Amino acid sequence: MGRVACSALRHQHSVCYAGGLARTAVPSEDIFDSLASLIAAQHPDVLLDLTTHPSSVSISMDALERGVRPVIGATGWTNGECDALSAAARERHLGAMLVPNFSIGATLMMRFAAEAARFFPSAEIIEMHHDQKKDAPSGTARLTAEKIERTGGPAAVPIHSVRMTGLLAHHEILFGGEGELLTIRHDSLSRTSFVAGMLASVQAVMRVEGLVIGLDAALPPAGDHG
Amino acid sequence: MGRVACSALRHQHSVCYAGGLARTAVPSEDIFDSLASLIAAQHPDVLLDLTTHPSSVSISMDALERGVRPVIGATGWTNGECDALSAAARERHLGAMLVPNFSIGATLMMRFAAEAARFFPSAEIIEMHHDQKKDAPSGTARLTAEKIERTGGPAAVPIHSVRMTGLLAHHEILFGGEGELLTIRHDSLSRTSFVAGMLASVQAVMRVEGLVIGLDAALPPAGDHG
Amino acid sequence: MGRVACSALRHQHSVCYAGGLARTAVPSEDIFDSLASLIAAQHPDVLLDLTTHPSSVSISMDALERGVRPVIGATGWTNGECDALSAAARERHLGAMLVPNFSIGATLMMRFAAEAARFFPSAEIIEMHHDQKKDAPSGTARLTAEKIERTGGPAAVPIHSVRMTGLLAHHEILFGGEGELLTIRHDSLSRTSFVAGMLASVQAVMRVEGLVIGLDAALPPAGDHG
Amino acid sequence: MGRVACSALRHQHSVCYAGGLARTAVPSEDIFDSLASLIAAQHPDVLLDLTTHPSSVSISMDALERGVRPVIGATGWTNGECDALSAAARERHLGAMLVPNFSIGATLMMRFAAEAARFFPSAEIIEMHHDQKKDAPSGTARLTAEKIERTGGPAAVPIHSVRMTGLLAHHEILFGGEGELLTIRHDSLSRTSFVAGMLASVQAVMRVEGLVIGLDAALPPAGDHG
Repeated sequence: MGRVACSALRHQHSVCYAGGLARTAVPSEDIFDSLASLIAAQHPDVLLDLTTHPSSVSISMDALERGVRPVIGATGWTNGECDALSAAARERHLGAMLVPNFSIGATLMMRFAAEAARFFPSAEIIEMHHDQKKDAPSGTARLTAEKIERTGGPAAVPIHSVRMTGLLAHHEILFGGEGELLTIRHDSLSRTSFVAGMLASVQAVMRVEGLVIGLDAALPPAGDHG
Repeated sequence: MGRVACSALRHQHSVCYAGGLARTAVPSEDIFDSLASLIAAQHPDVLLDLTTHPSSVSISMDALERGVRPVIGATGWTNGECDALSAAARERHLGAMLVPNFSIGATLMMRFAAEAARFFPSAEIIEMHHDQKKDAPSGTARLTAEKIERTGGPAAVPIHSVRMTGLLAHHEILFGGEGELLTIRHDSLSRTSFVAGMLASVQAVMRVEGLVIGLDAALPPAGDHG
Repeated sequence: MGRVACSALRHQHSVCYAGGLARTAVPSEDIFDSLASLIAAQHPDVLLDLTTHPSSVSISMDALERGVRPVIGATGWTNGECDALSAAARERHLGAMLVPNFSIGATLMMRFAAEAARFFPSAEIIEMHHDQKKDAPSGTARLTAEKIERTGGPAAVPIHSVRMTGLLAHHEILFGGEGELLTIRHDSLSRTSFVAGMLASVQAVMRVEGLVIGLDAALPPAGDHG
Repeated sequence: MGRVACSALRHQHSVCYAGGLARTAVPSEDIFDSLASLIAAQHPDVLLDLTTHPSSVSISMDALERGVRPVIGATGWTNGECDALSAAARERHLGAMLVPNFSIGATLMMRFAAEAARFFPSAEIIEMHHDQKKDAPSGTARLTAEKIERTGGPAAVPIHSVRMTGLLAHHEILFGGEGELLTIRHDSLSRTSFVAGMLASVQAVMRVEGLVIGLDAALPPAGDHG
């Protein structure tokens, strides 16, 4: 994931790639072996942290203390860790983002599902993944069901999990009303789908103060729906 | 359509059915043969006008002049007619709504499509209808394409029209991004799907002043997307 | 169902409608109140029996004894009843058909699923119905799963049942193989879908001897697949 | 493609990998630089030829002359070339197969479409591919339309081509009848999907004499549809 991100961000015109951080790599012109040396050499605005929890906690706090805004791709952060990061960010008047899922499509799917839930009496979720996936239902399906249930519309949204050779990662949310159906579907077909969401997050973290959770906040809703 | 609407609205708790207007029917306790007699007898707040253009123009203006807010289901109103209705409504501090499509599902589909268009480079529309449908592409498909194109995102959205025995009315909007797809689909399976949108419009017209066009305005967007 | 069938078969050129049988109706030129009087007056080749089990058992046996081939739309026949009907039909060198589901589309779906099952390692079924449907999974889904499992290919085919306002009757069979998916889907949108299968059965029963079970036998497979 | 095939076939228990042929590679224990040396060393039963037309013509004829059955993955063979290969195969009492598409899923989709076409009055095809695909409609869509039209059922099958970032290779065949729809869909998500079809072809060519065209012949239809 780190390699895909580096190679993609390096070629974006809307951000300036400052360098990579890798413990195991041989240091080179733009690969550093410590955050301190990277920051000293490049003075970046943002650190995109793709390590996992709990490593990501100390790395992000370290970045904030050195004046660099962290965008964190990990899952598993506790409420306490989030609160501490948020406080540290506010103290320095800097932004921080925790983004468990960088897919723009999945994020919009969840946003639309939460909105549709206010107008439809019933909803069900079908999530389909390759048979190597260990957990069921998927985290995205569970999170979507929660968002739907929280609207006070459809209650206890059933989730159907399909696990099959040949599948990649697919989510389908069905909403049923009198005489009509509304379906929102997301197909994730390649890891490259995460790059656009990383880019949006890296840009959004410059505009906020304190901790923001989720990619949704980096995707401004339309001013009007005309 | 008028009959489906009457029979459905009559049984709703959130509105009070004042009576119907029908030129050809034998007048009865709650069926009147003129707007004047209906208004005199029942003093309704709202007139749901399901006639077609141009009849709907004079009926709506007449209603407004008598202090009744029109909700109009017709298509084909000219800009000039809309402006005149809007002026008449504002003058009396009343609301008026022109709703070419009462389907909540189709309205949300268009709203979501316009929002997704801001984050995806490409979009195509597949609309599928029974083989008795005369026009192609459907009005909903053309309107959706316009909304997408207006965002400045995907340009010149192709529309594919499938016409086949057995189909009812189906729209599918595909959005493609690097490594992912987002699909929004609406299936209209029965005329009863229009009742919920009529009800939402009848209630929304009480809260506005001047002319509002489209069901979208009657479906308040979520306060937050959390 | 009987009324839909009568009105549809009456207008088919490929069969000659002999008359209807209805206990409650007033007898008329082509509606009879007993099988005996219908047969005496019209000498039909085939009786399309749309009563339910167990009425359909005596009606069909009665028809066969009078030299008329029964096409039976009921479910719930026991093996013993089937055997007795088969023996009675063979004795008279006549055909008889028992067709629990007259939908050509659903029948082809099951045929294709059984064939695909021989080439794919995994399969799952998603069946979606209106929320008034009492049983889950649907009989068609269970029968399809059995046909797939009987091929010795995918074992223990999972069935997911979606029940929702707005849905009609939909079945989707997913087959997954290395790097590819094959999906077979059937949507039943109106009762009129049963007419074509009734017609095919009425014609097929003329060509067989003894009892044939299922619409599949009335739909001859292609001579070649070129 | 050649590399994927080699690496996959090498690990199959149902065939014995004899060696590869590559003009540019350094010869090694199981990579040969000429057909003659490969055959002399390994005496294979079958040559899987993944070169393109016209190279594949001489390679296949050469293989046949040396007593090795060719399975050819190329498109573009003329009728004359096919006839010559067929004659050469028959003369030596050997099989030969020309397989323009090794996908089992796509082959079954076409088989099922040809069969469904005999029972449905109307059909349309939607094919969806990534935006790098040069031609439209896809060869598979055109071939499927031909097979449907040849049944004498639905005439002039419309093909809709969707080209979009994020798509891989998808075909959907819709059949519409009175009150029902039957949909057959194939999603090709990875090149590895071709391996199973190659294996089936390599085994099938041992059982035939003369030239067989298409993977369909290597996938025996079910004995019964029960």
